[in-house]
Amino acid sequence: MSDKSLSQRTAARLPKGMRDIDAAEMRAMREMIATISSVYERYGFDPLDTPAFEYTDALGKFLPDTDRPNEGVFSFQDEDEQWLSLRYDLTAPLARYVAANYDAIAKPFRRYQYGHVWRNEKPGPGRFRQFMQFDADTVGTASPAADVEMCMLAADTLEALGIPRGSYVIKVSNRKILDGVMEAIGLGGQENAGRRLIVLRAIDKLDRLGLQGVEQLLGKGRKDESGDFTKGAELAKKQIDAILDFLKRGETGDAELADMRASWSASGYDDRIIADPSVVRGLEYYTGPVFEAELTFHAQDEEGQPVRFGSVGGGGRYDGLVSRFRSQPVPATGFSLGVSRLYAALKHLDKLKATHAHGPVVVLVMDRARIGDYQRLTQELRHAGLRAEMYLGESGMKAQMKYADRRGAPCVVIQGEDERARGEVQIKDLIEGRRLAEMIEDNAEWREARPAQISVKAADLVAEVRKVLARHGA
Amino acid sequence: MSDKSLSQRTAARLPKGMRDIDAAEMRAMREMIATISSVYERYGFDPLDTPAFEYTDALGKFLPDTDRPNEGVFSFQDEDEQWLSLRYDLTAPLARYVAANYDAIAKPFRRYQYGHVWRNEKPGPGRFRQFMQFDADTVGTASPAADVEMCMLAADTLEALGIPRGSYVIKVSNRKILDGVMEAIGLGGQENAGRRLIVLRAIDKLDRLGLQGVEQLLGKGRKDESGDFTKGAELAKKQIDAILDFLKRGETGDAELADMRASWSASGYDDRIIADPSVVRGLEYYTGPVFEAELTFHAQDEEGQPVRFGSVGGGGRYDGLVSRFRSQPVPATGFSLGVSRLYAALKHLDKLKATHAHGPVVVLVMDRARIGDYQRLTQELRHAGLRAEMYLGESGMKAQMKYADRRGAPCVVIQGEDERARGEVQIKDLIEGRRLAEMIEDNAEWREARPAQISVKAADLVAEVRKVLARHGA
Repeated sequence: MSDKSLSQRTAARLPKGMRDIDAAEMRAMREMIATISSVYERYGFDPLDTPAFEYTDALGKFLPDTDRPNEGVFSFQDEDEQWLSLRYDLTAPLARYVAANYDAIAKPFRRYQYGHVWRNEKPGPGRFRQFMQFDADTVGTASPAADVEMCMLAADTLEALGIPRGSYVIKVSNRKILDGVMEAIGLGGQENAGRRLIVLRAIDKLDRLGLQGVEQLLGKGRKDESGDFTKGAELAKKQIDAILDFLKRGETGDAELADMRASWSASGYDDRIIADPSVVRGLEYYTGPVFEAELTFHAQDEEGQPVRFGSVGGGGRYDGLVSRFRSQPVPATGFSLGVSRLYAALKHLDKLKATHAHGPVVVLVMDRARIGDYQRLTQELRHAGLRAEMYLGESGMKAQMKYADRRGAPCVVIQGEDERARGEVQIKDLIEGRRLAEMIEDNAEWREARPAQISVKAADLVAEVRKVLARHGA
Repeated sequence: MSDKSLSQRTAARLPKGMRDIDAAEMRAMREMIATISSVYERYGFDPLDTPAFEYTDALGKFLPDTDRPNEGVFSFQDEDEQWLSLRYDLTAPLARYVAANYDAIAKPFRRYQYGHVWRNEKPGPGRFRQFMQFDADTVGTASPAADVEMCMLAADTLEALGIPRGSYVIKVSNRKILDGVMEAIGLGGQENAGRRLIVLRAIDKLDRLGLQGVEQLLGKGRKDESGDFTKGAELAKKQIDAILDFLKRGETGDAELADMRASWSASGYDDRIIADPSVVRGLEYYTGPVFEAELTFHAQDEEGQPVRFGSVGGGGRYDGLVSRFRSQPVPATGFSLGVSRLYAALKHLDKLKATHAHGPVVVLVMDRARIGDYQRLTQELRHAGLRAEMYLGESGMKAQMKYADRRGAPCVVIQGEDERARGEVQIKDLIEGRRLAEMIEDNAEWREARPAQISVKAADLVAEVRKVLARHGA
């Protein structure tokens, strides 16, 4: 009844920065998630799920993007006026979970989790406000071995997904090194937390904007291609130079980092994990080692333009996040993969596994009065484990064939009056039919030959359809 | 640094009506989703994903619960002040998707989708504000065959999940029958839409509250066990009697329903699908056939109290939902499974497949200076495809053994100074060890015997651990 009451139509539009995911991508994502899960499981992590939203104060404010009033998150009030926010990552909810269940869990606590996160940020090409992350975290240990393990996990996962060694690198640094630089240029102390965050965010963009872009963001600010201006940290020239120096310096003498390198080296990961001081990660909550998984291969888009995939994940140590809830310290470290970005890269590399399930066998409806018969044939195929559907529209033969074609059906099942009288069905192999059609030119000849179309006993339907599927490797 | 600045601790609490899902349930849910997907795929449906939130006007207001100011949904404003809402089901987003992509999709359009939905309702025992649905829909056909197919899909899915025939039933009715009754008692027309919805919601609770409860909700209202009062439809006695009569009448003479029955009967589903006029579904958008999947077996909870699982899914025809966005009519029908409720039922029936992956092999750390060696042993196991972890905490031998036990480790790997000197490792079978421990009483004897503990060449680590896993069927 509701449609009658509407005097004007509603617009069918997606919110900005949101997208739908079609069948091919859904199937590929499912494969990816299964692969990533299997590596994470092999590393001894167990799955966990937490709700999409949490109390705003439980999530805390650790997002890099403070340009917007909502501070980068989507928030709303509950019935009792308490503020709730959609999670912006999977780490903050984990901290809440661990704090709430501290006594019940075995420590160190190892969990993995995948799911959507939401950021109230400016959308852009390839930049969405909902995306999927896949995280592993170890909570309750300060051991650098836990950090090294995260880097090895990242490398093993990328390879399991089909990204060859040499086409990616795991970069490692330590937030403490940068903290030292900050201290040296007078940006230490709680009173400078805000400016330090702006500096962090600037450095985090080195990858994308280069040294010059970072320099602008450390100074007055920077105008992007769309003309939007991002206010800078407004550091003095001397301060900026000190940071740029640090970024250019390369190798560092940090002891913790040296320990970590010895460890990944002992496990034979020298060709996959490297120290790189430019890695800082844009989130405020990191307190020690930070890492980033970067794709290094060069690719071109359809117009031949170079495409960079860059960072597809990262993480680090966040020793302060759980202790926000508790009196004792609870050190923790984790790694997060950006599944949506990885999907784009894998698609480009043509590394997605056979993701298009074949279309269903389509049972055509030749006589609407006998629809029960066609439905029964369809159920017979389904109960034999085959993918099948009866044509449910109102159109005639030609449109039904076109529909079967668009659905990617390997074959259609036809039962007209004559076939029914003989207790038979016709099976038309659409894949073979297309191939033959390219060879037969004359239309009359075509109809005469009925290529790739056979009559079989109705009782043999399942067996005969199976033969068609086997022929096409489906 | 953030933790230092906090003068008071944040409370680690979940929002009301939300919950975390642990490893065992996550693994079981994943199995369930794979099973349901395979049945839906067999029926020729393709996967689709849509975002968690949509423009509020695109979702429309079709929720049963209008008691609360937010009308049952969680809503918030975007930067540009447009209202957004978390989806309360998967049908309204599908309607938006179809309308937006109408020309690009093959029709009838068959898609399945699973994901969380959110309802801003009063939480209660077993009643959450986030839960998972698993939907199949066919858009673009008015054929009752499409509705029948939904009912057969529901039956096949429940059986694939392990619910035996006879322990569930798919009930079918037609919203038009009730509409006729409404018309007869003077509740027709757009001006009575609000009251009709209250009547719908009342009838939808027949299952749970019985005829008397429904009678109260059709009249003045009803006080529930918690003391909360739900205002009723305030119908006159004559009107109430007409509705109760209709509910008691049982079988109906509706022609569309008769057609449907002929069809499911032809496919042999008479023992699984039945006509039942009490099914109305509480959502306003249904326009024709409506169905409900109900578990019928009787069960007891841990205290011996009877447990009813009742409805685990439902659906129906909603011919007006897509046409809200378009000028032409777009008939559609669908079915939605409540995955979380089904999980509870399957758990009760003990039908969840072997869902506890065995715990990881735990490599103990005997000498913190040689952590790189232990890490390498761990990586060796992982690269062989085995589930393994190195102990990452700070504790001694006894605590490490306890940790391995809590993790469900099938065995631990030990390499002390002596073993290393000999190029060996010890493997201690924890499962076998527990069994033997029950037989050996003397503590000294126990230490002497070192039951289920073997020394092997370090080079044979993987092969020997595999033997332990094979012994325990892992």
